[in-house]
Amino acid sequence: MKMIDGGVCAAKGFKANGTHCGIRKNRTKRDISLIVSQVPASAAAVYTTNLVKGAPLTVTKQNISNGIAQAVICNSGNANTCNANGVEVARKMCELVQRFTGIESSDVVVASTGVIGQPLDITPIESGMEQLVSGLGLNSQYAAEGIMTTDTVKKEIAVEFELGGKTCRIGGIAKGSGMIHPNMATMLVFITSDVKISSQMLQKALKSDVADTFNMISIDGDTSTNDMAVVLANGMAGNEEITCEGKDFETFMKALNTVNVYLCRMIAGDGEGATKLLECKVSGAPDKETAKIVAKSVICSSLTKAAMFGADANWGRVLCAVGYSGARVDVEKISCSFRSEAGEVCVCENGSGVEFSEELAKKILSENEIEILVDLHESNFEATAWGCDLTYDYVKINGDYRT
Amino acid sequence: MKMIDGGVCAAKGFKANGTHCGIRKNRTKRDISLIVSQVPASAAAVYTTNLVKGAPLTVTKQNISNGIAQAVICNSGNANTCNANGVEVARKMCELVQRFTGIESSDVVVASTGVIGQPLDITPIESGMEQLVSGLGLNSQYAAEGIMTTDTVKKEIAVEFELGGKTCRIGGIAKGSGMIHPNMATMLVFITSDVKISSQMLQKALKSDVADTFNMISIDGDTSTNDMAVVLANGMAGNEEITCEGKDFETFMKALNTVNVYLCRMIAGDGEGATKLLECKVSGAPDKETAKIVAKSVICSSLTKAAMFGADANWGRVLCAVGYSGARVDVEKISCSFRSEAGEVCVCENGSGVEFSEELAKKILSENEIEILVDLHESNFEATAWGCDLTYDYVKINGDYRT
Repeated sequence: MKMIDGGVCAAKGFKANGTHCGIRKNRTKRDISLIVSQVPASAAAVYTTNLVKGAPLTVTKQNISNGIAQAVICNSGNANTCNANGVEVARKMCELVQRFTGIESSDVVVASTGVIGQPLDITPIESGMEQLVSGLGLNSQYAAEGIMTTDTVKKEIAVEFELGGKTCRIGGIAKGSGMIHPNMATMLVFITSDVKISSQMLQKALKSDVADTFNMISIDGDTSTNDMAVVLANGMAGNEEITCEGKDFETFMKALNTVNVYLCRMIAGDGEGATKLLECKVSGAPDKETAKIVAKSVICSSLTKAAMFGADANWGRVLCAVGYSGARVDVEKISCSFRSEAGEVCVCENGSGVEFSEELAKKILSENEIEILVDLHESNFEATAWGCDLTYDYVKINGDYRT
Repeated sequence: MKMIDGGVCAAKGFKANGTHCGIRKNRTKRDISLIVSQVPASAAAVYTTNLVKGAPLTVTKQNISNGIAQAVICNSGNANTCNANGVEVARKMCELVQRFTGIESSDVVVASTGVIGQPLDITPIESGMEQLVSGLGLNSQYAAEGIMTTDTVKKEIAVEFELGGKTCRIGGIAKGSGMIHPNMATMLVFITSDVKISSQMLQKALKSDVADTFNMISIDGDTSTNDMAVVLANGMAGNEEITCEGKDFETFMKALNTVNVYLCRMIAGDGEGATKLLECKVSGAPDKETAKIVAKSVICSSLTKAAMFGADANWGRVLCAVGYSGARVDVEKISCSFRSEAGEVCVCENGSGVEFSEELAKKILSENEIEILVDLHESNFEATAWGCDLTYDYVKINGDYRT
């Protein structure tokens, strides 16, 4: 498997674009994105578990209930959520795709991200469609930009691998930043592939992988109303269709996981106001679930996040978060270390502090990618969760988001 | 029932003091507190559910397992948690109380608050005991100061009421500030009363009330390792002993609730870095549990907290937190308002936004006590949760707490 360029356009038969249509006031910010496949594709998706759901999710669910989709349209700047006419507007977005591309409106995935509770005006989208569609091409980066809100960098990746001698690709774009604490689904992630795979197996692959990737990120503990991860696989790579578990499915899963972990790290490292990517790696757990619960609890701890911002090796906060996680752990066995490019320092063994060089710890924690290593010393199960530090800028960004 | 002065010394037979013994470097900060009853008292306590538990909690549990206590000793500046010799040091603190006051060490409640994972030296406590004990008197305020960490104001209250013609009192002190997200128990709260009540009924009253008071606060979602709420009731008011439910128990519960709600509001309003007390009042819930889950979810939302800091009426974040709370609610029925001394503004009805004056909303949210009112419009159950805004200063305080 190798990394390649092209994002969501790396897979055969996919084009994309992103433009400014006027939902956002700032004309330099793209606010609408479109991804289309040359042929109808197997589609799979997972959605937020928030009971307050964005209207686009309702429409997308209906549209891909047959396991088929051919296009994705997504705007930023307005979440189209908690609006009386939200579903109507989301449907209109799909109809616009049909009018301008010929793709059936019932084969369109629709998504929105931005402020909740403000009516979404269809007018700018309608008037921007011609430009959006005429620019369709190998423009993954524009599509990645069009879905950004407070994100500071666009998030895209693609990988190439072989299935039965055929070269296949998976690519993805994502938006993250704030209101990120996915539960069963995630922020916005659009993945394309030219692999031939049944929609059942695609859904199985996505659901299984999301549990270990996007659902293991937290920026601020707030599960968004509009989280959605979608994969379209159009089969144009020409591999023998994957219709059951086996070697090909494993290869596909591994490639999908590579794409998703990459996007997870990008989303976490670009959390609102973040200066550091935090990775909590839990090992020695009695089972996978325990490892995940512990890793996510540490990554969610405001106090740990603030300590990391200050490069303060305050490991008591890590232990505290392990203790209240809800997982059954033997506190007296826990060890904890901090690691980064600058080195590694063990700060706690058998649940109690050990002497360590504060100077080295400060150096390690001053890097911009920090690993928090927690070993439960019970068995050999592991899990990783991703997050970021809590900074002045998170407060600044969210103290006045709307105005 | 009326508010009176005196804090934990308002109840007959209780004396207290707080001094600087040298655990903290800053000589102007009291770091050790002592409360004693003239006679042995019924004792009840609730503790953190964090699996990482402070050593003092282990010793206190043993000491009051017979339902009797006569003194409380508590230091700040060091949590005596995650230390190999923690239990030994906590026991020594109880033995020092015995040596200097004659009260049995097994009748002492011991507590600690401060940094986790640094050995607690008994030496300064030992050398400070004489001064601490010789100053015992009606000094509730000193005891309240001696347990403060990053708290900016001391927290104390007392109320007076009658039981069967006898005047009775309940008083309390508390510390809060950070690592505050109590679960089954709470930060540090010490309550004294001269009511005569069996330890079984006292435990019942405390446990029941804490579920609606201290467990409904969250500052930062981090459940501390050292949370503890303790009540001592020494019976010196001379009322007929409360040994079962009934009118007297109800009166006692009401007085206890008044004390606890007051302390909750003080703890929430003085959360680390807070500029505002937030009260989320949920009404119209189908049951009490739903009301509580929803109220606490809103109060815990980092995004809502940051919006309140910025006086931004971003009610979508409130709806979002209701939606991911885990409670079964009908989103289409929810209404939401913001209220303060400056007025009230309705921002959402039937799950969708309504037009409102941004100017008025800004004025309302610029006050320092804000009510977030959520009506589920299903039945008539209610709950309140308390918290504070998320500010630059929270990050500042916790970016470098140890040094």
